[in-house]
Amino acid sequence: MREKIGIIPGSFDPVTKGHLDIITRASGLFDKVIVSVLNNRTKNPLFSAEERVKLIEKTVESLDNVEVDQFDGLLIDYVRQKNAKAIIKGLRAVSDFEYELQMASINQKLDKQVETVFMMTSPEYAYLSSSIVKELAKYHAHTQDLVPECVEDALNKKFNKEL
Amino acid sequence: MREKIGIIPGSFDPVTKGHLDIITRASGLFDKVIVSVLNNRTKNPLFSAEERVKLIEKTVESLDNVEVDQFDGLLIDYVRQKNAKAIIKGLRAVSDFEYELQMASINQKLDKQVETVFMMTSPEYAYLSSSIVKELAKYHAHTQDLVPECVEDALNKKFNKEL
Amino acid sequence: MREKIGIIPGSFDPVTKGHLDIITRASGLFDKVIVSVLNNRTKNPLFSAEERVKLIEKTVESLDNVEVDQFDGLLIDYVRQKNAKAIIKGLRAVSDFEYELQMASINQKLDKQVETVFMMTSPEYAYLSSSIVKELAKYHAHTQDLVPECVEDALNKKFNKEL
Amino acid sequence: MREKIGIIPGSFDPVTKGHLDIITRASGLFDKVIVSVLNNRTKNPLFSAEERVKLIEKTVESLDNVEVDQFDGLLIDYVRQKNAKAIIKGLRAVSDFEYELQMASINQKLDKQVETVFMMTSPEYAYLSSSIVKELAKYHAHTQDLVPECVEDALNKKFNKEL
Amino acid sequence: MREKIGIIPGSFDPVTKGHLDIITRASGLFDKVIVSVLNNRTKNPLFSAEERVKLIEKTVESLDNVEVDQFDGLLIDYVRQKNAKAIIKGLRAVSDFEYELQMASINQKLDKQVETVFMMTSPEYAYLSSSIVKELAKYHAHTQDLVPECVEDALNKKFNKEL
Amino acid sequence: MREKIGIIPGSFDPVTKGHLDIITRASGLFDKVIVSVLNNRTKNPLFSAEERVKLIEKTVESLDNVEVDQFDGLLIDYVRQKNAKAIIKGLRAVSDFEYELQMASINQKLDKQVETVFMMTSPEYAYLSSSIVKELAKYHAHTQDLVPECVEDALNKKFNKEL
Repeated sequence: MREKIGIIPGSFDPVTKGHLDIITRASGLFDKVIVSVLNNRTKNPLFSAEERVKLIEKTVESLDNVEVDQFDGLLIDYVRQKNAKAIIKGLRAVSDFEYELQMASINQKLDKQVETVFMMTSPEYAYLSSSIVKELAKYHAHTQDLVPECVEDALNKKFNKEL
Repeated sequence: MREKIGIIPGSFDPVTKGHLDIITRASGLFDKVIVSVLNNRTKNPLFSAEERVKLIEKTVESLDNVEVDQFDGLLIDYVRQKNAKAIIKGLRAVSDFEYELQMASINQKLDKQVETVFMMTSPEYAYLSSSIVKELAKYHAHTQDLVPECVEDALNKKFNKEL
Repeated sequence: MREKIGIIPGSFDPVTKGHLDIITRASGLFDKVIVSVLNNRTKNPLFSAEERVKLIEKTVESLDNVEVDQFDGLLIDYVRQKNAKAIIKGLRAVSDFEYELQMASINQKLDKQVETVFMMTSPEYAYLSSSIVKELAKYHAHTQDLVPECVEDALNKKFNKEL
Repeated sequence: MREKIGIIPGSFDPVTKGHLDIITRASGLFDKVIVSVLNNRTKNPLFSAEERVKLIEKTVESLDNVEVDQFDGLLIDYVRQKNAKAIIKGLRAVSDFEYELQMASINQKLDKQVETVFMMTSPEYAYLSSSIVKELAKYHAHTQDLVPECVEDALNKKFNKEL
Repeated sequence: MREKIGIIPGSFDPVTKGHLDIITRASGLFDKVIVSVLNNRTKNPLFSAEERVKLIEKTVESLDNVEVDQFDGLLIDYVRQKNAKAIIKGLRAVSDFEYELQMASINQKLDKQVETVFMMTSPEYAYLSSSIVKELAKYHAHTQDLVPECVEDALNKKFNKEL
Repeated sequence: MREKIGIIPGSFDPVTKGHLDIITRASGLFDKVIVSVLNNRTKNPLFSAEERVKLIEKTVESLDNVEVDQFDGLLIDYVRQKNAKAIIKGLRAVSDFEYELQMASINQKLDKQVETVFMMTSPEYAYLSSSIVKELAKYHAHTQDLVPECVEDALNKKFNKEL
């Protein structure tokens, strides 16, 4: 039986405890999970794609079947190249849901062999997003409940905060 | 590695092409898929649990790794008893989404080892539900695009329609 | 050019000022509008189908191109029998929207020649429904801003209220 | 300055930790909070209105400015009779939101002096409802994280569970 | 009887098969339909207003009662100038719905004589948008199921793709 | 008993009759209400923070317990500094609701002592937003039903309209 690979794509700018929750739970459902940082040159990220990959790698190092990677271009091309069966997305709210349903439909149109599966973000992280984390860090609010420790340190460095 | 089992619970009164679409696609993601008819004695189904199981069995007979079963009581107890990793649910609309998110949260609360994964119903079946199929069959409208052939026959018999 | 007929189906138990708003505006868009009371025998309406038709007739008597009728069975069969081009539905809220989209899809599936068009309920009636009106009338609250005068009288009679 | 009274109406069949969360937080915003059990004779509650009032009283006994009461009829009449300024409602999901917005509009129409204010249910209780609690208790699942202790005992008694 | 004109406004950057579906169906409901390209100078379109008009003209050339035009400024001013009865909008998702309801309300406020009517995008195009088409074309994915042939050619030229 | 202060934060670029409706109703629920203009330097407002404060001051001058202020940085820090009990937000639509719920959760996470309470925008202003007002004023449409008189004048000056 072919190994079942799931891909979790995203900006991860930076990875949060909400992302980590989805990654951990997905790693129990698939033989291998690849967390893939979208290297979108037109957006203006806080962390470079390389920095984002490194922060995720530190965050998931205890999860044996999780790899971290980056990609650009069309997600579906990347998924095929990795021989993955599924795209995995976390859902928080109705507005997420509609956008993700639209993307899942277009990806199904492009390749019927690739499935999109959705997992619900745990209620305690439902409010959490990378943008909110950056906004808080910018104003020196505590983020230790929201992001892994290595990300908190990285945020503090970016925003020149004395520890 | 433990075999990964996914359970697709539902009323399936009767099974539609929308259900079949989800079952088929889920069977590619899990080692084994169990389609489980909720035998809810307080509702008043058109088909008995046994009839519903038989109609699904005919519908999925070409899918090797799909079993059909029935259950009553709490879903999470049933899932544990079957050693399943995941509950699989099809999502059609925002209203589905909110209810299913609520159920997924309560099941996560009851057992952190069991995941709920959501799959998007293919757009061509997004409007489809068992209730609409029954309403149409009751008024002798054609249902051949909406349900498997064996279900169409069963609906015709229930509503005494001459073929 | 064939006369363009639009059908506004509903329970109208009883007709409200929100319904009247949609009927009036639709009568400006179509050559003829038929307001059609669903005579659903399994529900338990406050007013009989005949009473509901009479109340709508009084309410719309100044609108020359509006007829009132009743039907049972499948809406699409009724629409075809009336040679109508369109089903007209008022939308108030997101939950309306999803249900109506589902019904529009199934009707499009059943007959591609019949369109469903949606009109937005005017903001001042967005909160209004026949059930709320009945609940208020039952407890003798004033309903004169919510329903036409003839309906207010009929509600008062049903709930034995002294005028 | 007139004392500011807020009313939290509901079925509370039975009160949950989600309700308690809203009650506690509302008690910090208003001078007095009245938790009012809707004694709706047409529904078929598990607990009588008197039992529901008693369970809430035990649950909120440490909150000095909270009273428990019951009412029937129109909420707005009850609110006026209590000289309250506001109706307080907890919101969990989009579907709650639309229904509550409709009720708030109708109540504003009936009395412009009475406001409806909404509070967000804390994320950890977003999935929680009295119906789910009853369903779980019926099948003898643990409910101690979901309801106050006195409610858990009452549920166990109703469903004849040995402790 | 005055001729009934409906206007379908939009960016159409570029026109898709989803737009064409709405235009075709609307042309059966109104005496004349004008597809009107919003010439919004502050956005940065892929195709100029003139190019967008030409692509729509080619796409609708078999529909006798459909004209193509462009406008800038307030939609309601344009609608009045064209003596149109209705603005026609396609709805795909809940998020569309809320925005469109807001715009319909403001336009009703500005001119009570102009109606907004909504049509549901056919399920097979529900996922489709001009932005997704451009994203796909940029990465050289096939778009022939998503846009008319002339648009596919135009996209290929913009993105320098060898055929 | 400590004075109960509620804060209504926002961009108010410019204040509309919808905002005024919420401010007026909130002033009846709290001992003091502070309307606080977010001085967000990265956005590009039509009116400066000082102009926005002045326009609100004129608009609310008859409300004795309402103050107008401006702030930048994190809302929760500002709320604490003002010793306020609650953040007050108007809700219009489902999309508002989800965003506001997310913000309320994060603020609850940051400070459990501060509540967010939501009030429903009155139906007649549900469609109204500062952006729509600016769009209309730019094209010289009448805005007198949408904004206070002083704001209408200010808009006319910004867009050089002869009165």
